[in-house]
Amino acid sequence: MPDTRNSQDEAESPAAMEARVRASYARQAMMATMGAQLAVVERGRVELIVGHDDRFTQQHGFLHAGAVTAVLDTACGYAAFSVMPPNAAVLTASFTTNLLAPAAGRQFVMTAEVVRAGRTLVVCRADAVADGATRPFAIMQATLTAVYDRPGIVS
Amino acid sequence: MPDTRNSQDEAESPAAMEARVRASYARQAMMATMGAQLAVVERGRVELIVGHDDRFTQQHGFLHAGAVTAVLDTACGYAAFSVMPPNAAVLTASFTTNLLAPAAGRQFVMTAEVVRAGRTLVVCRADAVADGATRPFAIMQATLTAVYDRPGIVS
Amino acid sequence: MPDTRNSQDEAESPAAMEARVRASYARQAMMATMGAQLAVVERGRVELIVGHDDRFTQQHGFLHAGAVTAVLDTACGYAAFSVMPPNAAVLTASFTTNLLAPAAGRQFVMTAEVVRAGRTLVVCRADAVADGATRPFAIMQATLTAVYDRPGIVS
Amino acid sequence: MPDTRNSQDEAESPAAMEARVRASYARQAMMATMGAQLAVVERGRVELIVGHDDRFTQQHGFLHAGAVTAVLDTACGYAAFSVMPPNAAVLTASFTTNLLAPAAGRQFVMTAEVVRAGRTLVVCRADAVADGATRPFAIMQATLTAVYDRPGIVS
Repeated sequence: MPDTRNSQDEAESPAAMEARVRASYARQAMMATMGAQLAVVERGRVELIVGHDDRFTQQHGFLHAGAVTAVLDTACGYAAFSVMPPNAAVLTASFTTNLLAPAAGRQFVMTAEVVRAGRTLVVCRADAVADGATRPFAIMQATLTAVYDRPGIVS
Repeated sequence: MPDTRNSQDEAESPAAMEARVRASYARQAMMATMGAQLAVVERGRVELIVGHDDRFTQQHGFLHAGAVTAVLDTACGYAAFSVMPPNAAVLTASFTTNLLAPAAGRQFVMTAEVVRAGRTLVVCRADAVADGATRPFAIMQATLTAVYDRPGIVS
Repeated sequence: MPDTRNSQDEAESPAAMEARVRASYARQAMMATMGAQLAVVERGRVELIVGHDDRFTQQHGFLHAGAVTAVLDTACGYAAFSVMPPNAAVLTASFTTNLLAPAAGRQFVMTAEVVRAGRTLVVCRADAVADGATRPFAIMQATLTAVYDRPGIVS
Repeated sequence: MPDTRNSQDEAESPAAMEARVRASYARQAMMATMGAQLAVVERGRVELIVGHDDRFTQQHGFLHAGAVTAVLDTACGYAAFSVMPPNAAVLTASFTTNLLAPAAGRQFVMTAEVVRAGRTLVVCRADAVADGATRPFAIMQATLTAVYDRPGIVS
């Protein structure tokens, strides 16, 4: 169960939260370029879906670790963003990705959940699963930062 | 100074090593899609250059952490590959990226160096620097694996 | 559910596996020094318990991040060891620890689970929980290596 | 060269900074228990020395990864603390440790340097070297947080 204790449950309806997340996601050019879809948005939990794409492969023809990481990081970022106050912007501070197996498959689901919702730092875990498998082929542990009133960084 | 103790100094000339690295890099569709150039190839040290690209930005218009990571990871991968035996293939096991500042700039240089060249595991550090700055805006610590004789994984 | 696919289910009984894990754990001087107990040993899942100890605190009087990490790492190490062949030794390759809150409490439970049991590399996740809390105050993502026939490294 | 841009160069003399670091270090019970010495304190760079100790070994008789990490983390913590304002306290947010080789030796030097000194987050890199070797046997990448006015967390 994601940590949503710091979210603005009273100040912001689930629909307003989802609209806020989707508005920000729509400005993520890289996700649009990769064709990644924001499938599920809950408080503290986000699911993205992306298909295999020959343009984003590494030397063996599998989805590049950087492409896998881009979607995992985005899932973590919006899971964190969903529990932040509406006037916060989200930036990634750091993440660790473990690649457990090559990203072989046609469709990949990246799911991120908030483990700790602090005032400034939000920590998430995420899994990447291929084609309905039960085990992840990649996992992430990420630290996101809530940013307020910084020029050029809008929520 | 990169750790090159495990490399095949006697069996493989610098030119043969560089040709081996460049041949594998040429199969990295994601690097071609991003327009990243393999600028420097030395034993245990690799430098990539990539320009800002609006297609690979996050919600604030900066290069996406996933795009930054893709190039850092590729730099680490080929730094590691450069010290592996010619019949090895390289796979990323894990990496940690710290995003120190937004990736603001026109051109980014990612430099990776081998810290430890083990038989199976190679550990690298990498820096991402923008537009001739002296300090990195992102750093990586990565673990790469040498793979032998695995179906579908060619060197 | 931990990944135990690579474990020697047929060759080794659960009792033999647990005896093998406990024999190695008994040689961990640091765990003895810290008074950590190996509470649960299952294939792919290990639980350690350690009490607060003023000798292992940081400057604010909480258990030191290094002490927390020592127990989390040991939990990951033995979760990984439990799915390795009996002739393998286990070494830690790398881990990422996120400290979510100060380690405040009297007793701490560290639980590790195998996410991926590969032939050489085993990846685990672990949580540290204080005094029966429902949420972790620290989490780890770790990569362990199975080592065979290396001088000085016994299973 | 460590990043010291955010440090209070004008408000605090080097001697006052070092006194502030050493006063906090003196409250680190774990470092005292391990016999670790704070050898060098500069703005943005700290060096600790610790001897081999049979009480803190793992199952093969080498210094435990958790003990190595404790000293690396402390080195990072005080490197970060040295560039923080005098009224800040330092807490570790996260770190990644790579164990490159067993911690075999009699004396270990852990050196940490600030890579980025932000207002809230400070990122460091650290190396652990054994007995005058030229290459590290362990490396760390860490994120530290500056904390102000939090009950129970003193500078």
